[in-house]
Order: sequence, then C-alpha cells, then structure tokens
Amino acid sequence: MKIRELAQLIEGIVEGDGDIDIKGMSGIETAKPGDLTFAMDEAFLASAEKSRASCILTNNSARRSSKALIKVSNPKLSFLIIYNTLNTPKDRESFIHPLATVSDSAHIGKNVWIGSNVAVEEGVNIGDHVIIESNSVVKKNCEIGAFCRIYPNVTLYEHTRLGKNVVLHGGAVIGSDGFGYVKESGKIYKFPQLGRVVIGNDVEIGSNTTIDRGSLSDTVIGDGSKIDNLCQIAHNVKIGKNALIAAQCGISGSTIIGDNVTMGGQAGMIDNLVIGDNVTIGAKSAIIGNIKSGSLVWGIPARPIAQMKRQLAVLSWMEKHFKAITKLLK
Amino acid sequence: MKIRELAQLIEGIVEGDGDIDIKGMSGIETAKPGDLTFAMDEAFLASAEKSRASCILTNNSARRSSKALIKVSNPKLSFLIIYNTLNTPKDRESFIHPLATVSDSAHIGKNVWIGSNVAVEEGVNIGDHVIIESNSVVKKNCEIGAFCRIYPNVTLYEHTRLGKNVVLHGGAVIGSDGFGYVKESGKIYKFPQLGRVVIGNDVEIGSNTTIDRGSLSDTVIGDGSKIDNLCQIAHNVKIGKNALIAAQCGISGSTIIGDNVTMGGQAGMIDNLVIGDNVTIGAKSAIIGNIKSGSLVWGIPARPIAQMKRQLAVLSWMEKHFKAITKLLK
Amino acid sequence: MKIRELAQLIEGIVEGDGDIDIKGMSGIETAKPGDLTFAMDEAFLASAEKSRASCILTNNSARRSSKALIKVSNPKLSFLIIYNTLNTPKDRESFIHPLATVSDSAHIGKNVWIGSNVAVEEGVNIGDHVIIESNSVVKKNCEIGAFCRIYPNVTLYEHTRLGKNVVLHGGAVIGSDGFGYVKESGKIYKFPQLGRVVIGNDVEIGSNTTIDRGSLSDTVIGDGSKIDNLCQIAHNVKIGKNALIAAQCGISGSTIIGDNVTMGGQAGMIDNLVIGDNVTIGAKSAIIGNIKSGSLVWGIPARPIAQMKRQLAVLSWMEKHFKAITKLLK
Repeated sequence: MKIRELAQLIEGIVEGDGDIDIKGMSGIETAKPGDLTFAMDEAFLASAEKSRASCILTNNSARRSSKALIKVSNPKLSFLIIYNTLNTPKDRESFIHPLATVSDSAHIGKNVWIGSNVAVEEGVNIGDHVIIESNSVVKKNCEIGAFCRIYPNVTLYEHTRLGKNVVLHGGAVIGSDGFGYVKESGKIYKFPQLGRVVIGNDVEIGSNTTIDRGSLSDTVIGDGSKIDNLCQIAHNVKIGKNALIAAQCGISGSTIIGDNVTMGGQAGMIDNLVIGDNVTIGAKSAIIGNIKSGSLVWGIPARPIAQMKRQLAVLSWMEKHFKAITKLLK
Repeated sequence: MKIRELAQLIEGIVEGDGDIDIKGMSGIETAKPGDLTFAMDEAFLASAEKSRASCILTNNSARRSSKALIKVSNPKLSFLIIYNTLNTPKDRESFIHPLATVSDSAHIGKNVWIGSNVAVEEGVNIGDHVIIESNSVVKKNCEIGAFCRIYPNVTLYEHTRLGKNVVLHGGAVIGSDGFGYVKESGKIYKFPQLGRVVIGNDVEIGSNTTIDRGSLSDTVIGDGSKIDNLCQIAHNVKIGKNALIAAQCGISGSTIIGDNVTMGGQAGMIDNLVIGDNVTIGAKSAIIGNIKSGSLVWGIPARPIAQMKRQLAVLSWMEKHFKAITKLLK
Repeated sequence: MKIRELAQLIEGIVEGDGDIDIKGMSGIETAKPGDLTFAMDEAFLASAEKSRASCILTNNSARRSSKALIKVSNPKLSFLIIYNTLNTPKDRESFIHPLATVSDSAHIGKNVWIGSNVAVEEGVNIGDHVIIESNSVVKKNCEIGAFCRIYPNVTLYEHTRLGKNVVLHGGAVIGSDGFGYVKESGKIYKFPQLGRVVIGNDVEIGSNTTIDRGSLSDTVIGDGSKIDNLCQIAHNVKIGKNALIAAQCGISGSTIIGDNVTMGGQAGMIDNLVIGDNVTIGAKSAIIGNIKSGSLVWGIPARPIAQMKRQLAVLSWMEKHFKAITKLLK
C-alpha cells in the first residue's frame, strides 16, 4: 500500500513522497526499509528519523522531516487503526489440505482455509472466510462463525459455538469437561458435564488457555472479550462484554462477571460469585466474595485497593516498632 | 433408553408414561424434549414442569405431576448414577484411521478406536476398549489400560503407564522431563530425568495439565484421583487415592501426598513435603511445610484456616485503629 | 558402553569387571541389571549394593564392593556428566515421515528427523541434527539452530528463532500474539504484535509453556536459560543468561531480567520492570517493582525475605496478644 493510501485510511496529511510503497509496520528500533513507524512527539520523531523506516506517522504539529510523514491528531490511535485494518485476514481461496480429515457431514462455507492434519468431525458448521491452521481438531457439531481464525494445535470439543471473528491461539482447549465431582458415601461420582461453550463475536483467546463446557447450562464469553494465555475458565462461567483477562487467571465454576471487567495476571475467583460491571482486579488477587460494579480491588483475599495498601503499610510499621510495642504491652 | 429402564437402574418408581424414550440429560433451564432432568424438592419440581424435559427425576415425597416422574430417595445421587452409567464409552468397533501412524511393534487390544493423525510409537501396549482421539501422540513403550479415553492433542512421553479407565483431556502432557538442574562451578547440568509417570485406575486429568516423569524414581498418581486443567505435577511427586486438585495448582518435586486430599484452585506446594490424608487446602494457598492428616489450611504461607482468618481480622482492626495505636506508642 | 569406557569419560578408577555393558542409569530404588547408579557415601553404597544395578559410581574413599565400582572425587557431578553426555541426541539418519508436510521452500539441514503429521511452512530454515517430533507445527520463516529438539504438539509461530541445542517440550507455544489492547473512546483496538521470539543457545522450555512474540521489538530468552512447564512469558520480555524459572511463573510485558535469575514456582512479575542479575525470587511472589542485583525476595508483594518473615512473625504475635492489645488501647 502506498503512503498516500494509508493516509486516506486515517484522514492524515502526507508530507514528502506519497508514492512510496509501505510493506510493514514496526517500532522505531526494529524498523526496516519499507516500514511505517510512529512518533508521538518531537523526541520520538528525532529517533524515528534515524531509523530505517520509510515513513513516520506523527502528530499534526510536528516539524518537517527528511523522511515522508503522515500527520494526524492522534498518531498512536491511527497506528492501531492501520494495523487492525491490514491485520484482517485476507480472502484466501478455498483450500482443504489433502492430509486434513473433514467429515462429509460438515458444512464448509466460502473461502475457508483448512491446513494439514486438521480434523473436522461430523455435523460441524464452518462459516465463510474461516482459517483453521495445521493440527487443530474440531469435534462434532461445533459451529464456527465467519472470519474466525484458529491457530495450530487447538482443540474444540463437541457443540462449541464461536461467533464471528473469533481468534483462538495455539494449543487452546475449548469445551472440555468441567471439574465436577460429588462425594457420596465415600465414592466419587462425576457430575454431568453436558453444556456447551458459547463464545460471542470479536473474542480473542490466548495460547494454551482452557475453557470448560457448562455442566447443565452453558459457559458463555461475551462479545469483544479478550483472554490471555494459560487462563482457566470453569464450567458455567458467564463473562460479559469487553473483558480483558490477563495471563494465568482462573475463574471458578458458575461465577458471573459483568461487562468491561479487567483482571491482572494470575488473579483468581472462587465459584458462584457475582462480579459487577467495570470492575478492575489487581494482579494475583484472590476474589472470594461478590464485587460491586466499578470497584477496584487487590490482594489475597482482595480488598479495595486503598485499604489493601494501608494494611500493608500498617504491617510494615508494626514490624519497625515491634520492640516498642512489646515493651508497651509488658 | 425408556423411562422404565432408567428407573430400574436406580430402583426408582415410575409415575406416568414409562415408555417414553429418553435421549439425553440436562438442567431445568436447558432441557429439550426427550431429556431427563431432576428436581430435588417441590420448588424445583414446579420449574421442571415448566421446562421442555420429558421426564423429571424427583424425590419419593413429590406430588403428582403433568410430566412423567421417576421417584427415588436421593434424586441428585440417582442423576449422577444415570449419567455415569450412560457416560461409559460404548463398545466401538475396532478402528484405526488411515492417517494414524501406528508402529508395527505396538500391541493394540480389542475394540480400540484410534483417530486421524494419531502417532503410536514402538513398543506401546494399548488395552481393550481404549479411545485415542485425533492428533494425540503416544511415545515409545507406553502402557495404556483398558477403557482409557485420550482426547485430542494429548502427548504421552516414553514409558508412561496409565491404569484402567483413565481420562486425559485435550492438550495434557504426561511424562515430560522434570525441571532438574544442578549448578556446579558456574555451569548448569541437567539432572537425569529417567523415571516414569505411573497413573492408577479411574483417574481424570484436565486439559493442558502437565505431569513430569520422575528423575530417578517414578511420579505416581493414585487410583480415583482427579486433577483439573492447567495443573503442574513435578517429578517424583506421589499423590494418593481420590485426590481432588482444582485448576492451576502446582506441586513441586518429590512431595508426597496422602489419600483424599483436596486442593483449591491456584494452590501450590514446595518440594520434598509430606502431606497427610484427608487434608483440605484453600484456594491460592502456598504450602511450605509438612501438613498433618485431617488439617484444613489456607493462606500464603498456609496456616490453619481459623488462625488465618483471625490474622486477617487483626490486620484489619490495626488499620482501623492505627491513629490510636501510634498515639499510644508516643 | 562398557564400564571401562564410562570411567574414562569422567577420569574415574574402575574396581571389578570393567567389561560389563552398561545400558542405562537409574536411582538405587529403581535400578535394573545393566544399570549404573551412584552412591555419595558409605551409607548409600550399602543400599546400592543391595540394588539390581550392575555398577556403582562412588567416591574415591569408598571401600571394596561386591559390585563393580567407578571411583571419582565427586560422584554426583560425574553422574550428571555421564547423563548429559549420553543424553545428547545421537546422529540419526535423515528422515521425513511421509505424513509430514514440509514446504518446498523450507531449508532442511543434515541428519534432520521429522516425525508424522509435522507441518513445516514456507521459508523455514532447519539446522543440522534437529529432531521435530510428531504433530508439531513450525510456521513461516522460523529459524531452528543445530541440535534443537522439539517434542510433540509444539507450535512455533512465524519468524521464531531458536539458537543451537534448544529443547522445547510437548505443547509449548512460542511466538503467539502478545496481549496488547488499547481502549480508545470505548472501543478496544488490538495493539500491533509484529516482533519475534528470539531464543539463545542451550535453552530448555517446559511443556505447555507460552512465550509471546514482541509487539514492536522482540521477546528474548538468553543462552542457557531453563523455563519449566506452564510458564507465561509476555511480549517484549528480555530474559538474560542462565535463568531458572520454575513452573507456572508469569512475566508481564516488556519486563527486563538480568543474568542468573531464579524464580520459584507460581511467581509473577508485573510489566515494565527491570530486574538485576543474580536475583532469587521465592515461590508465589508478586514482583511489583524493580529489583537490584543480588536480592533475595519473597511475598505478595515481594519484600526482602528476612523482612517478609519478620512481618509474618509480627502478625502472628499480634493475633496471640490481641486481647491484651485491645485492652491496652481502651
């Protein structure tokens, strides 16, 4: 794409040669000839000029440069818009690798790309423009919406349902049995795991993350939610829209989470909780009770963040004055 | 199966049409025609009657209903018994997918089902009625007992031994090298990882869980133990019978765990510990010392749960009276 | 290998029959005929003599034995040296399984072994003596150095670069997109994930561990570093040489770690930190600030270990004297 065309995409103003071809995007340090990079302000602009990039996306007030510029009001946002526009999977021609195993009863949409050693079982329904990379397995009766992208070595259990434009990274396992056992008179019985995983539109799931099918209802991930690597989402969990869940978080069975919730890495929630909207949870927190909308919590167990910080300060003060305190008590 | 036949399985009494065919089981909310659901008491019975289920499993004292009923003394237990009876994999005909790679020196039992792109290496011994789903890999000299079920994308390293009726969920890795290194005069040497993983009967292992082979002895998982998703079991660990280990737990090298131990999610144990029988460990705990049989512990590091709660209460009280305390000290 | 030859490898002295063939190594408990075991001192030597091992590696001052001995100054170190010498993958003949899918544009070195259902995409460069086991996927333009060993079901995303003698255990995912999203005016934009993962020489990565590609720069793992199972290394992280990172650790985006750092299991670091050399981090710690070289820290959040222990002791003391303290305050 030429600089001139990229500029149109973000309503930017071109300074310098608008006919240069841009082949990629990169940060200032790693830029190669043909790359677009971005510079938020004058200081970054100076560094960007020394890089090997062919074009710099910068703000409207920037000075003239030796390199071609695209000027916009918010260079970072424009950079994101260009990335997300170009990152949309291109229409590939329909392709099913001869070493893929696709059931005759599966329905395959238009322009679907299926890599080597993929298994697609009976009754699966795959929408248009879907990509399923090598060595992934899609078990019976799954529904995969249009524009989904499934990276290698992913497993979808029976009846899993993906909305449109869902991305599943390598090794993710969606729809496995939940961890439900009942001890009755010294014997362990497995509790029925019969529900589905239902994932909304525009969801991205990280590598080796696991999401269990519901037991008697469904496990649900709302539109626009993003879940990082190595997370565990247990049976019957419902997550609202636009959640951002960092790596290695765990959410126990039947917990219900509102919209726009953010979880720092390695945080966990016990089962059967109700978490409101717009809740922010600090890294490594343990959530052991319901949380109201708008709360900001941290700790094990999690407390309002200001309270948690005061308690840590009190403990530190106690340690410093421990001799005086013990003396006073005597 | 007809309602009449299901009732016989659990010694229940049929009210209504016992000839209706039951095709599945489900919760009240998600029931479809042909489903069996269950209602513990009158309140649930009213909801169950409004559902689309064809039959309700309920208690002996329940009133008459517009739907067919099976009455028993403990509807939940009976529901579990029916599920576990029907969930036993049916005898499939022997099948090896043409895209599976099975070594000539492997021994394959009766009624074994092997999916596409499975690799079974030299000297493997697979018992009767085993299912190995697509894209799993069984390395040299593994022993797989009768009725085992291995879901897709699982990896078994050399010499791994599974008892009867073991379930391994998607992406689990069993038998990889333990994390053993010795620093000697500034150099890092890998410590020998030569043992096996030996798993007992009736064990279920969650998705993407990892269990390392022993270094010089074996890693052992006792009969009936259940391990959830994304857990890490290190080299030489011995886990007793009927453990319930929730998601994202980690057990460090050579730790020995008794029978009937329960671990909440994200808990961890350091290495070389001895944990007794019937121990219960709260979610996210860090176990850094031995634990006696029958203990109930929680916290980082873990303490008896009542003590842990008191300490949290004391810290909270200190924070509230911090001004008064500092004044007193002056 | 004969006992005599093994002894030469470690400059040991043979006592007894040096012509016995040694076929394996093992601990005292699990030794079989044909095995070499080791005994650090007289007590272990007595146990080792009762084992079924054919040869005992022991120290120079050991008494005579009924079994063949190899005597050295440091039996444990010599045992490690023998293991690491024998554990080096032997030169296999070149082999590409007929069910592997290898792109014509990939460059494959000498004596490379590629198992069934492996996918090697366009532009990949594989060095000499590399082993890629069944069902692993190597995406476009990856570079794999000589003597690398990739176990089954591993996924390498585009442009990943492995040095020499790198070991990747089953299910590891290297190079997936980092977790980078920007909320702008209520919309979630994916931040560009365009960098690579660059792994040095002699690195070992555990099962189901995930390492994300850099966003605008690279994610880097230094020479000799060892990372256990189920760890998460986020985008742009730089880890120095000879790190030892135990299972289930997580390192957030853009954090920079020096050489010789040790992390206990389940520890985590937030993003954008700078961690010095020779830092030791206790299990389950949460690192939320920069750490100087040579520090030993533990806790949530992490503190110097002595301070952390004192604070735990203070809290415990407070709990025991709580009645007296409240009385005093009144």
